[in-house]
This record gives sequence, C-alpha cells and structure tokens, in this order.
Amino acid sequence: MSAFDGMWAAISSVGRDPRGGYARDAWSGADLDMREWFAQEAVRRGLDLRADRNGNLWAWWGDPSREPGVVTGSHLDSVRQGGAYDGPLGVVSAFAALDLLREREVRPARPVGVVCFTDEEGARFGVPCVGSRLLTGVLDPDRARGLTDDDGGTLADALTRAGREPGSLGRDEETLRQIGVFVELHVEQGRALVHLDAPVGVGSTIWPHGRWRLDFHGRADHAGTTALADRDDPMLALARTVLAAREAAERLGVVATVGKVRVSPGSANAIPGLVSAWLDARGRTEEAVRELVGEVTAGARVSCESWTPAVDFDPALLARVARAAGRGAASPTPTSGAGPALPGTAAHGAGVPVPGTGHGAGVPVAHGAEVPVLGTGAGHDAGVLAAAGVPAAMVFVRNPTGISHSPEEHAEPADCHAGVAALADVLEELCT
Amino acid sequence: MSAFDGMWAAISSVGRDPRGGYARDAWSGADLDMREWFAQEAVRRGLDLRADRNGNLWAWWGDPSREPGVVTGSHLDSVRQGGAYDGPLGVVSAFAALDLLREREVRPARPVGVVCFTDEEGARFGVPCVGSRLLTGVLDPDRARGLTDDDGGTLADALTRAGREPGSLGRDEETLRQIGVFVELHVEQGRALVHLDAPVGVGSTIWPHGRWRLDFHGRADHAGTTALADRDDPMLALARTVLAAREAAERLGVVATVGKVRVSPGSANAIPGLVSAWLDARGRTEEAVRELVGEVTAGARVSCESWTPAVDFDPALLARVARAAGRGAASPTPTSGAGPALPGTAAHGAGVPVPGTGHGAGVPVAHGAEVPVLGTGAGHDAGVLAAAGVPAAMVFVRNPTGISHSPEEHAEPADCHAGVAALADVLEELCT
Repeated sequence: MSAFDGMWAAISSVGRDPRGGYARDAWSGADLDMREWFAQEAVRRGLDLRADRNGNLWAWWGDPSREPGVVTGSHLDSVRQGGAYDGPLGVVSAFAALDLLREREVRPARPVGVVCFTDEEGARFGVPCVGSRLLTGVLDPDRARGLTDDDGGTLADALTRAGREPGSLGRDEETLRQIGVFVELHVEQGRALVHLDAPVGVGSTIWPHGRWRLDFHGRADHAGTTALADRDDPMLALARTVLAAREAAERLGVVATVGKVRVSPGSANAIPGLVSAWLDARGRTEEAVRELVGEVTAGARVSCESWTPAVDFDPALLARVARAAGRGAASPTPTSGAGPALPGTAAHGAGVPVPGTGHGAGVPVAHGAEVPVLGTGAGHDAGVLAAAGVPAAMVFVRNPTGISHSPEEHAEPADCHAGVAALADVLEELCT
Repeated sequence: MSAFDGMWAAISSVGRDPRGGYARDAWSGADLDMREWFAQEAVRRGLDLRADRNGNLWAWWGDPSREPGVVTGSHLDSVRQGGAYDGPLGVVSAFAALDLLREREVRPARPVGVVCFTDEEGARFGVPCVGSRLLTGVLDPDRARGLTDDDGGTLADALTRAGREPGSLGRDEETLRQIGVFVELHVEQGRALVHLDAPVGVGSTIWPHGRWRLDFHGRADHAGTTALADRDDPMLALARTVLAAREAAERLGVVATVGKVRVSPGSANAIPGLVSAWLDARGRTEEAVRELVGEVTAGARVSCESWTPAVDFDPALLARVARAAGRGAASPTPTSGAGPALPGTAAHGAGVPVPGTGHGAGVPVAHGAEVPVLGTGAGHDAGVLAAAGVPAAMVFVRNPTGISHSPEEHAEPADCHAGVAALADVLEELCT
C-alpha cells in the first residue's frame, strides 16, 4: 500500500486552512495545485489525461471512445476548514486501486478511468456538484457562469483566470458516453460502519432530502412589561418545533436538523414578532420525511426551499459491487443479515427503519452483500450521475469520528487500505 | 379637557415613521420639533423655560432656586415604529394637569415644574434614560459623548448640530436640588389595569431585571449524514431552555424572554456547533429572578450582561399619590384589596406572586391605596431619579392593547382624561 501512502503524503500540505483543516475552494490556488497533482499521477502511470468541457479531469487506461469504461474517482476540492478525506480519499484510492490491478496483471476488457470532478462542495460558489451537474445537463451553464463567490467574482471569471474557456460549459454527451459505470469511494460521513464494526460498506441509495423554511409569527412586544398571559411569543413555537422534530425523527427513522434561525426584531429586550427557522430533513423514504415535516410544522407558515428525490443506485451493480468489495475488504465484516444491533435501537421491532443513524445502516438491503449496504443522507457526484441514468455505485470507508466537513473527519490507514483493496476487486469484477 | 385634546392633536403629526407609528429619535428633526412644541406650551402658560446642562427641558411655575419643587413630566422621544403615548402622554398630561390646578385657583406653596427628559428610549444611541442618567451622574459624560448612532455619528456631534454644547454634559447638582419630588405619568405597558378594570394605577416599584448571555456548545456536523445518536446539537438545548424559562416564569411569577439568538455556523444543512441566546428576566424580587436564571441555564455557559436592582418608590409618597390619584381618577376603580382576580390565576393560592402579568398587578401592596398599585418591568426616568435618592412616583394610564413600543400602543381619551385628573390631584396634594 505504499503507493497510497505516498500519494496521501504528497497532497497533505496542499491548501491548509489557517483556521484548521483544509480550504480547497474550486479554482483556487490550492485546487489548481491538487489538479496539477492529479495530472502528474496520471502521466506517471501512462494514462491518457484530458479535461472535459466542464473542467472535470479524466485519466484513462484504455480508450473510452471505443467502448464505455469503468470509472472511479471523486473530487479534490474541500469545504472551508474541511477534513483531508472528503473527496481526495476517493481519488487517491482510485489511482492506488488501478496500481493493484496492474500488480495483479489484470487485463481489462474495458477501459478503466480515474476521474476528478470539479467543485463538488460548492464552498466557493454556493452550488454543490457543479462539475457533474454541468456534465449531465442538470445545471444550466448560464446560471453556472453567473454564480458568484464572497468577493463578487463569477465562476466565469475564475475559469478564465485558470486558463479555461467559460463558454464551453454544458452537457457533455461525448464524455457521458464514455462512462459505462461509475464507482465512487468516499469516507463515511456518519458512524454506521463504526457501529457495525466494518471498515468498508457500499451505498444503496442517496436519501430523499429537503429544506423547508418555517415562519413562526407572533407579536413583538416589551420583554419587561408584557404579562406572560398576554404574550404571543413565536420563540416558544420554535422551541416546541425543534424538540418535536427530534422526537419525530427518532420515531420515523429519519434525520431532521434546524441549523439556521432568524429572529425579528432580534433585541434582547423584545419579545420576537417573527422567528424564521430552516428545517433540513432526510430519510430513507420520501413518505417518512414528508410525514415528519407535516407533523412538526403545523404551527408555522411553511415554504419548501428545495426537494431532492431519492436516488437508488443500480441494484444489479450494487450486488456485484457489494460481493466484490466483500472479497477485497481485508477485515472480517458482518454479513448483511447478521450485523450487530445498533446502539439505541433495541427497543424498535424488526422491520422498523433504524433510527439514530444518518445512514440507516444495520438493516442492509438483501442483495447477498458481503459488506454492509448503507443509504446516505449526503449528495455526491455518484448520485448526480445515477439520477442521470449512469450506472453508479459507492464504496464507503469507516470514519471513526463520524464527523464530516471538519478537521476531525478521519479514516485509519488500515481502513483506507481495505478500501483500496475493495475498490480494486470491484474494478476487476467490472472491467473483466 | 380640551387643553389635553388640543395639545395631543398638535403633536400627532410630528415624526411619523413611514413604516408605521412614530420615529422620534433623540436630537432628530422630529425630536427638535417636539422640543419646540414643549417650549411653546411653556411660554404660552407664562412658565419659566430652561434647558439644563444635559438638554432636559424644564418649565417652572414658581422659582425652584428658592425651594425644591413638585415636578411632573416624562419624555418626548420614541422608539422607531413606536406608539404615540409612551412619553408624550406624560408631558401633555403634565401641562393639562397644571392647567387644571390653575382653573381650580390652586395657590401652590412650592414651585411646580414640567419636565421633558431627553433621550429616554435610547433608540438612536443605544443607551436609555440618557438625560436623567447624566443628570444624576449615573452615566459618564465621556461615555455619553462617544455613543454612536447607526451612521457612526456621535452624540456629541448630534448635540453640536442641535446647537448645544457637548462639553456641558454631566451630573447637575443645581438642577437636582430643584426637584423636591417627581411624579411621572406613563401609559401602561401591560394589561394589568385592563384585568383590574381601572383607568389609572400608581407604581410601587421598578422590578429588578437582568440580561444573561447563554452559550450552548455542541459539535458542528453534517445535517444529512450524522446519526441522531451521534449528534451533539445545541439547538435542542436552546429549545429546552426556552420552554423551561417560560415554565419557571409562570411558576415563579416573573417574566422571562429569549428575544435574540445567534447560531453558528448558521447553515441550513449543518448541525450547529454553537447557539448563543440572550435571556431577559425581570420580576418582583431579585430572588425569584435569580432562581429562574439558575434553574434554566444549567446546560449553558452563562455570562450576566447587565443587572439592575429593584427600585422602590418612596412608600410615604406612594401612599399620598395613590390616595390623591384615587380621588382624581373619574371612573370607579377597585380598591387594592378587592380587585378582581386576574384571568389565569385562579389555580394559584393566595400569597403566591401573580404569574401571567408583567406588572404583577392583582396583589397590590397595602398602602391604603384607592387605585391599583403596580410594579413594572420597564425602566423609566422616574426610576433613575428614585435610585439617585429623589422622591419619585409614577401614575399609569390603562392601555387596552397592553402593547408597547408599537403603533398598537393605545389609551382611550376618557382614560387619558382620568389620568390628567388624577395627576392634578396628586400635584395639588404635593404642592399645597
């Protein structure tokens, strides 16, 4: 595994955030350094390097213009004060897995590619998965060009400064045709694999998720002179909703978060007239998410700000990936039917969606999988491709902290190596 | 009462806020117009008009340099989008009550003065009761001169532009010596008098009140991927604290408000790492307020941002004012011992502080009062003077909405007239 460790060390100093962790904004100097590193790794291996119309980088072993290939990879940008693993783990593992195939003298029957999608996090311009969304045509190129960063600069400006042609953005049929199947390896962003004592899992689905704005109206008044009985204080409604959302999330096996609140007039000595809160809810089924939102928002004026339906990865592909990943992952992992019960779930009967885990792990779907099969509440480029009809799958590597988008995000070296081994077996399964 | 009505009509168009109600910031054009109106009313009555070192306006009937006088009045500035009554009702009623004394051919044995305190609301420079605090030396003149408004202009600049000398600010012994007693009439800022079916009440005390900042620390994390069991979400602690504060306030007979909240990082898709909230608590006794704060802030890092002890008005003065106001107030009012029970208080035994009312009315203190005697949770110039050792008292006029600092603040004409009559009787009692 020295190839993995060497690559990991090579990028560890790129884009350090002075506040901690990494800041690798899309098209920043740090991002360009990461892209240059990608190019060098491709060239070193004799792979054909190209950037597509939208700036995504591709390193091909074999010629995908003759036949759609097996693609793996992830992204190299990060959120601000982000961790080292979210994105780069998938790209470094992709090169390392390709190295393993070559060590085993595997002769691919189809091309094998490594991809770096651009601007997955949206940390700079506010929209995530820009590279894959432009590629699949989900993101309008005019809208993309006009996105602005904190300094008011547009994505078009940033592309120009990076030596790219903003006019070339847009759905890219040629590149899409080259992707026969896409497998993204990613650090887990929760602790399902910790609870299941497994170094590696595979993704079954990206959960449906939505964001709702809740406006609680009351009556602004004097904090010192207004009798309790005469108050109409919307802060109480917010408080009840926050607690109700948590209770309903536990009961329904989904996750719900209130992470943004605005209070008007917002004076310490005034009863608020209006409290606005944003509810983020995600879960295995659309029904459960909508049930939670319906339950807990009864007292508010509700507007849905975004809704993304579930993305299910291809079941047949999932089964092959799970079987292959099970062979590759070195450490013994529980089978899908025999995983240990999750902490805190004993009180719930069988068949009830598992509450208390963002991944809904512990009730793996039955595909004869050899590794845990997890749903996830986060968006990924693999989800964007899957939604566009590309067969896609994900491999997750255990994160002992479960923390994501933070310097505390982590994966043990042994688990990273298990991830590379699993990914290599998946690629071998798919390309031969 | 035509004098009252005429004066009220004269100022009704001054300083209208385009968003509703009034905006009469200290030293704004609207405030200067109000001060000019005050000067004209003084001159029209042949009163001696003077501005003190701090810009407070005084209109004297008789010479207070020979003997301390009986002073009444209030302020003419307003909060933004404020009501018509908070402040001006006390000044207009003061002139109207003085007119009544003259109609009755009362010959005062002591001078009688009408005062307009400057910048009571603090709407522009952030500090309330600037005029009375400078007068009594509680507010440092250097600090006052350096206070800034939203445009970055200082109070010193504003004074200079208004033709005043900022260097003259500071404790004013000469003016203080002239105030033998101060009675401030004010629109009620709650609904205690509504519940008691009384047009007029008198103030017994300004409640102790404080402001605490509560920091709830958690762990920022991904809203979509972090299992409920793995979360440390400080929004839940905030919600529990808001509800606990309401419950404790009801039980302890105090008022508690969370009117300002800050969430970090404050993204809809992130579990907060830190939620800060400001708790305002006021009540009849310091013990009750501190008990509430101790109870509900257990899970937070707490810092006290301000604390103002109780201000009790002079008991002997209070008794005289209450008796006199009882004669003056026209409509029948319940006596202190026989007031109707407040709505929502039936379940509480006798002797329990009345919850559900900012004024703590319904259990008037026993002074042989003929009108309800109320504590209040709001600060006033009368409280600043009382804290400085000046005998002071307050007369409250019923506010049917109970709403304050809002265009919905109101007093019926008949109640305003009852207030003037009560104030006239109080002045007659005190000046003869």
